[in-house]
Amino acid sequence: MNDDAPVLCAKDARGVVTLTLNRPQAFNALSEGVLDALQAQLDAIAADETARIVVIRAAGKAFCAGHDLKEMRAEPSLDYYRRLFAQCGRMMMTIQRLPVPVLAQVQGIATAAGCQLVAMCDLAVAARDARFAVSGVNLGLFCSTPSVALSRNLPRKAAFEMLVTGAFISADEAREKGLVNRVVDAAELDAEVERLVAAVVAKPRVAIAAGKGLFYRQLETGIAAAYDLAAETMACNMMDASALEGVQAFIDKRPPAWS
Amino acid sequence: MNDDAPVLCAKDARGVVTLTLNRPQAFNALSEGVLDALQAQLDAIAADETARIVVIRAAGKAFCAGHDLKEMRAEPSLDYYRRLFAQCGRMMMTIQRLPVPVLAQVQGIATAAGCQLVAMCDLAVAARDARFAVSGVNLGLFCSTPSVALSRNLPRKAAFEMLVTGAFISADEAREKGLVNRVVDAAELDAEVERLVAAVVAKPRVAIAAGKGLFYRQLETGIAAAYDLAAETMACNMMDASALEGVQAFIDKRPPAWS
Amino acid sequence: MNDDAPVLCAKDARGVVTLTLNRPQAFNALSEGVLDALQAQLDAIAADETARIVVIRAAGKAFCAGHDLKEMRAEPSLDYYRRLFAQCGRMMMTIQRLPVPVLAQVQGIATAAGCQLVAMCDLAVAARDARFAVSGVNLGLFCSTPSVALSRNLPRKAAFEMLVTGAFISADEAREKGLVNRVVDAAELDAEVERLVAAVVAKPRVAIAAGKGLFYRQLETGIAAAYDLAAETMACNMMDASALEGVQAFIDKRPPAWS
Repeated sequence: MNDDAPVLCAKDARGVVTLTLNRPQAFNALSEGVLDALQAQLDAIAADETARIVVIRAAGKAFCAGHDLKEMRAEPSLDYYRRLFAQCGRMMMTIQRLPVPVLAQVQGIATAAGCQLVAMCDLAVAARDARFAVSGVNLGLFCSTPSVALSRNLPRKAAFEMLVTGAFISADEAREKGLVNRVVDAAELDAEVERLVAAVVAKPRVAIAAGKGLFYRQLETGIAAAYDLAAETMACNMMDASALEGVQAFIDKRPPAWS
Repeated sequence: MNDDAPVLCAKDARGVVTLTLNRPQAFNALSEGVLDALQAQLDAIAADETARIVVIRAAGKAFCAGHDLKEMRAEPSLDYYRRLFAQCGRMMMTIQRLPVPVLAQVQGIATAAGCQLVAMCDLAVAARDARFAVSGVNLGLFCSTPSVALSRNLPRKAAFEMLVTGAFISADEAREKGLVNRVVDAAELDAEVERLVAAVVAKPRVAIAAGKGLFYRQLETGIAAAYDLAAETMACNMMDASALEGVQAFIDKRPPAWS
Repeated sequence: MNDDAPVLCAKDARGVVTLTLNRPQAFNALSEGVLDALQAQLDAIAADETARIVVIRAAGKAFCAGHDLKEMRAEPSLDYYRRLFAQCGRMMMTIQRLPVPVLAQVQGIATAAGCQLVAMCDLAVAARDARFAVSGVNLGLFCSTPSVALSRNLPRKAAFEMLVTGAFISADEAREKGLVNRVVDAAELDAEVERLVAAVVAKPRVAIAAGKGLFYRQLETGIAAAYDLAAETMACNMMDASALEGVQAFIDKRPPAWS
């Protein structure tokens, strides 16, 4: 175990932040220590204007096996479980509310809250041998909080089947159903993640931040209200120096001169 | 016809309830008699704590051809049609509100309200020769009530195409688009349904009941409210004896001792 | 350029209205002139009870490259952009609110608001060499208004990837993800569009109009309210002479005698 450093954080010169789940012996289970660390790191990233994208990856063979069941079972009480699932949900929502995209890089298993973590990220790339399940029901604990994220990624019958059977789906099935964007051989995983990362960091931060925020807000409104929100976001985005330069550069048939 | 027993009901020792649409000569059209029978049987299942899953299947070559058009056409009046579609919608919503999963086992055609019935079930398994259409528009009657269910299963352009053309899609297309979970050869249909049934009855009833209810409630709220609902459901689920035993058994590396 | 006739309008004897984007030298960019013309033509179609379906197609190699960037860049001001995006959104919503189906016939590129236009149509048929992107982010202008339409057609991770990378997807990918209904060889494009057009005009206008309106209204409500709306729509539809005749003709095993 590495319980004094359950999540490693690194940032490169481009502003690419890598968060590595670092409890490989525990299949990177989301102990309270991990949840605390992720929350603190995500909060710091939210306030860091040099951050451009976050990659959540995992040490070892598994991506994440969900909550830490030993810890959860130690002192059962309704209040404790309420706090625990609220803490986990707050971390998950922080991912969605972050001003930069969050990408899950998945190998091995992603189960229960680990599968939820993949679903809550904006983007996901999986190794071909990755497998996904919301397996709590096998223990009598329906994956209710994961279902919130899963049902917003997959068609509802596919999500329901996973939730009541607890069975695994393959990486290719996950891609077909919408849970992950891309599937590649394990040896190509880093390179494929880097392709998406490079595509994102090549764009102005302000446009991505405004666009990501709008994307999730407008999904929760009717379409007419969504267009009102989007028109305002886009008008403000267009007045930003980077967009004015980008559009002018396009007219001039030259690359944009972004700082 | 079997109008004194338009829907057969059987329950096995595991609590698997099979409802068989039993008007094969009428392609199992949903006459008022069938709707009444289904409503009464579903209401009974909702109150039966020994029921674990419902399989809706059909006698004969067709799954269900929708409303009974002869009956519908006999005495046209706006009030009658309002009552009829309200009655049908109430039955459909009872499926979704049932505390146990409902699985459609589909062979042959599933058209109009018959296609809606498949869409409203939580799970669906189809024979490879099954075909699906919302064909009312061919008669000048747009499948408006089926569109409610269809548009919550399929991508919207695919649903819209089916609704305005009235054309059939194959079982494989239905699976790709999200209308059914699995497609198998007709000879394998019973066995494939049994696999899903067995997966469900192996889990504690209380977890499935809480989870199914939460699943559909949270789909209709914003994501933050959805997480609040889900966290409360999951905390209560965890305090149940079956989940405490299931999680402990997992820690102990033994099968759960559920009664 | 054809700026005095930026959108050509033709209607055949069946009521099939063809709107042709007619600025091929500008990749059919949606200048204010084009937006004005489309708005006026769509408003006229909404009031024309002989119109049955609208096909939006494009002259030249491209379908539509989105907003006219030269025009947009000429006199930057927040008020101007607010008006422009509101005007564009109003035109897009007019498509959805039209009482007849609108079909996009797509060849070449459909980018930014051009991709949004495809997404907002009820149906879309693409040539195999068509390509789709929401590419504004490449210029620092996140496609916020297109995201409203895109996220209502595609799974959210697929939509998000397109929005932050600005990358193209192929016609086949667009079909798999739900952005278009059908993909055919370029030589078959007209014929495939005609198949869908013929299927629609064979149905009574009143049923399609009521059904299309209901389809989009019910998508924005909870499922119980959706069923209430749909039951009322369907009861009224059934009382229409064309539905009464259509259902009677079905019972009599003869084609309906629709005028």
